[in-house]
Amino acid sequence: MVRARKYVVKNRFQGSPKRSDYSIIEQDLPPLKDGEILVKTEWISVDPYLRAYNSAYPVPYDQFAFQVGVVQESKDPNHPVGSRIVSHKGWCNYSVVNMSAPFPSPENRHYKLPNIGNLSPSLAVGALGMPGATAYLAFLETGQPKPGETVVITGAGGAVGSLVGQIAKIKGCNVIGFTGSDKKAQLLKEELGFDKAFNYKSVNIEKALQEAAPNGVDIYFDNVGGEISSTIMYQMNYKGRVIVVGSISSYNSSANQLPQVTLVQPAILFKSLKVEGFLIWNWSLEQWNEAFVEIVKWIESGQLKAKEHISEGFDNLFDVFIGMLNGDNFGKAVVRI
Amino acid sequence: MVRARKYVVKNRFQGSPKRSDYSIIEQDLPPLKDGEILVKTEWISVDPYLRAYNSAYPVPYDQFAFQVGVVQESKDPNHPVGSRIVSHKGWCNYSVVNMSAPFPSPENRHYKLPNIGNLSPSLAVGALGMPGATAYLAFLETGQPKPGETVVITGAGGAVGSLVGQIAKIKGCNVIGFTGSDKKAQLLKEELGFDKAFNYKSVNIEKALQEAAPNGVDIYFDNVGGEISSTIMYQMNYKGRVIVVGSISSYNSSANQLPQVTLVQPAILFKSLKVEGFLIWNWSLEQWNEAFVEIVKWIESGQLKAKEHISEGFDNLFDVFIGMLNGDNFGKAVVRI
Repeated sequence: MVRARKYVVKNRFQGSPKRSDYSIIEQDLPPLKDGEILVKTEWISVDPYLRAYNSAYPVPYDQFAFQVGVVQESKDPNHPVGSRIVSHKGWCNYSVVNMSAPFPSPENRHYKLPNIGNLSPSLAVGALGMPGATAYLAFLETGQPKPGETVVITGAGGAVGSLVGQIAKIKGCNVIGFTGSDKKAQLLKEELGFDKAFNYKSVNIEKALQEAAPNGVDIYFDNVGGEISSTIMYQMNYKGRVIVVGSISSYNSSANQLPQVTLVQPAILFKSLKVEGFLIWNWSLEQWNEAFVEIVKWIESGQLKAKEHISEGFDNLFDVFIGMLNGDNFGKAVVRI
Repeated sequence: MVRARKYVVKNRFQGSPKRSDYSIIEQDLPPLKDGEILVKTEWISVDPYLRAYNSAYPVPYDQFAFQVGVVQESKDPNHPVGSRIVSHKGWCNYSVVNMSAPFPSPENRHYKLPNIGNLSPSLAVGALGMPGATAYLAFLETGQPKPGETVVITGAGGAVGSLVGQIAKIKGCNVIGFTGSDKKAQLLKEELGFDKAFNYKSVNIEKALQEAAPNGVDIYFDNVGGEISSTIMYQMNYKGRVIVVGSISSYNSSANQLPQVTLVQPAILFKSLKVEGFLIWNWSLEQWNEAFVEIVKWIESGQLKAKEHISEGFDNLFDVFIGMLNGDNFGKAVVRI
C-alpha cells in the first residue's frame, strides 16, 4: 500500500491564490486493478492556466497540472515498471493511472514519455510537453510565419514565449520580446538570440516598439493581454496576425471586474487583422508528437535552448506557482519532487 | 462648359464633424478629353467610413463617397450618354471620369451601374453597392454561417446591418439585432424579420442577450465596437466568429484618446474565437458583382427588403451625414441630388 500526498484546491481564488486556498491531503492508494499503473512523480509543472481555470472547475478539486513520473507498479503490459509517463494528475507525489481509459477531458490527457533521447525527462512538461506543443503549433500552424516577418512576443521569458522567439528565429523572423525585468530582457537577447527585448515595466512600450519595428509588426504572439496588447495591435501591419495564447495579466481578476483597456476594434478593422484564440487542448496527441520530434532535433542540434527554472520539493509547489505568476521564472517553471 | 459644385474637407475633424470643416467650391469643369465622360450626380451616399477615413487623407480633400450618376456627355463609346455610372467621386453634382483609367486607390473605384432590373438606381450605393457587397461578403465569406447558428448584429438598423440580418435569416440563422432606438428595434422585427431586436441604449445588454441567445452566440457581426462588443464576445460559443466591419462608436475619438473597454483577450482565448477585420476594398469588382446578382434575386423575390432613408438636396449632405453618424437613419442613408 502506498501513502500518497496531493494538493486540493478548496476555494475559488480571489485575486492572487493564497496558501489557505489549498489543503494537502494524505491518503492510502487502493491496490491496482487490471490495466492500471502506479506512477511515482518526478517532475511537476506550474503554468498560468492553473490560475485561469480555477473558475471553471467545481471546488474542491485536485490541483491539476502536467507531471512526469516513473512507473513503480504495473498491471498494464504496455507500461512496465521503470517506464515514464506524462499525465495531468498534477500536484501529487503518487498517482494511479489507467493509460487505456479515454481522457476524462481534453486537457486531462496522459501518454508515454515521448522519445526525447538523452534529454532530461523534466522537459516533457516544458519544451517537450504542453508548453512546447503550444509554442510550436500556435506559432507555426496558427501564425503561419514567413521569413523576414517581424514577430512580437509578450511574456517572452516564460515557458511558451522563450520557445516561440527561438522558433521564430529558426524560421527567419525578426523577433522582439517583452518581459518583466531588465535581467530577463538581457537573457532573451544574449542567450536566446532575440533581436530585441525590453522590460515592459520600465520602457515606453509604444516608442520602444516603433524603434525596434520601424516597418511594423506582422505577428503578435500574445501571452498576457492587457493594455500592452492594445498598444502592440495599433503597431501592426496590414493583414497581421494576432495569436492569443494567454491572458495572464487578467487571470487574477474576477470575471465581472476585468481590466479596461484601449479598444482594439479600429486596429483590427483598418489593418484587416486576424486575431485568433489558441487552445492547445484542441490539438491531438499526434499533433503534439509531431511538434516534439522537431523540437528534439532543434535542441540536439543546439538551435534551440530549453531553459528551465527548476525548484525542489513537493512542499514548495505553492510558492513556485505564485512566483511563476509573478514572473520570477526565466523559461519553464518546474518542480522536482 | 459646366459649372460644378463640390464639398471640400478643410480640416482634420475634432470629435463630431462640423459644418465649418467643409467648404462648398464652385468651379468650371474643363472640356472632356478622349475617354472621359461627364456624369451628372443623381444619388450620393453617406457612410460611417467618411468620418473614419478623415485622419487617413491629407487635408484639404474632396469629400469622397459613392455616388450614382447619369452620363451627360461622353467621349467613351463604352459609356454613352444616358447610361449610369457608380463612382467614388462623392459629394459633387457633376464629375468627369475616365472609366478605363486604373483606380487611384482600392476604394476609389468606378463602374457601370450593375444590372439591377427595375430597381431604383439609388440602391447602387446601398444594397446593390458597397454596403450590400460588404454585408454579403463579410457575413457569408468571412463569417461562414451555418443554418441554426445564432448571429448577433450591432448597428443592426444601418445600411450594412439591416442587410446582414436578412441574409442571415435567408441562410437559416437565428438573428438578434442591437440598434439605437425602440422604433428601429420594432422595425427590425416587424419589417425585416429579425428574431429579436433591442434598443442598446435602454436595455441591460448582457441580460437581454442571455435571454435572447440562451445557447450562446456563434457569429457576431460588429459594426460599432465599444463596450457592447466586449459584452457580446463574452457570450459567444466555442469557435465563434467575430467579423469586425465597423467601429463607429469610436470614429469621433482621436487616435490617442480611444475609449477604454473591457479587455477581450480572455473571451478570445477561452472560447477559441476568430476575430477578423473586414475591409471591403480587399474585394474585387467581380466579387462585388457576384454579391449583387444574388441580392437582386432576393430583392425581386421579396426575401430581402432594401430599406432606404432618403433625403433631398445637395445642400443637405452635411446634415444627413451627421444624422447618419447619430443613428437617425433606418437602412441606407442616401441623398437625392
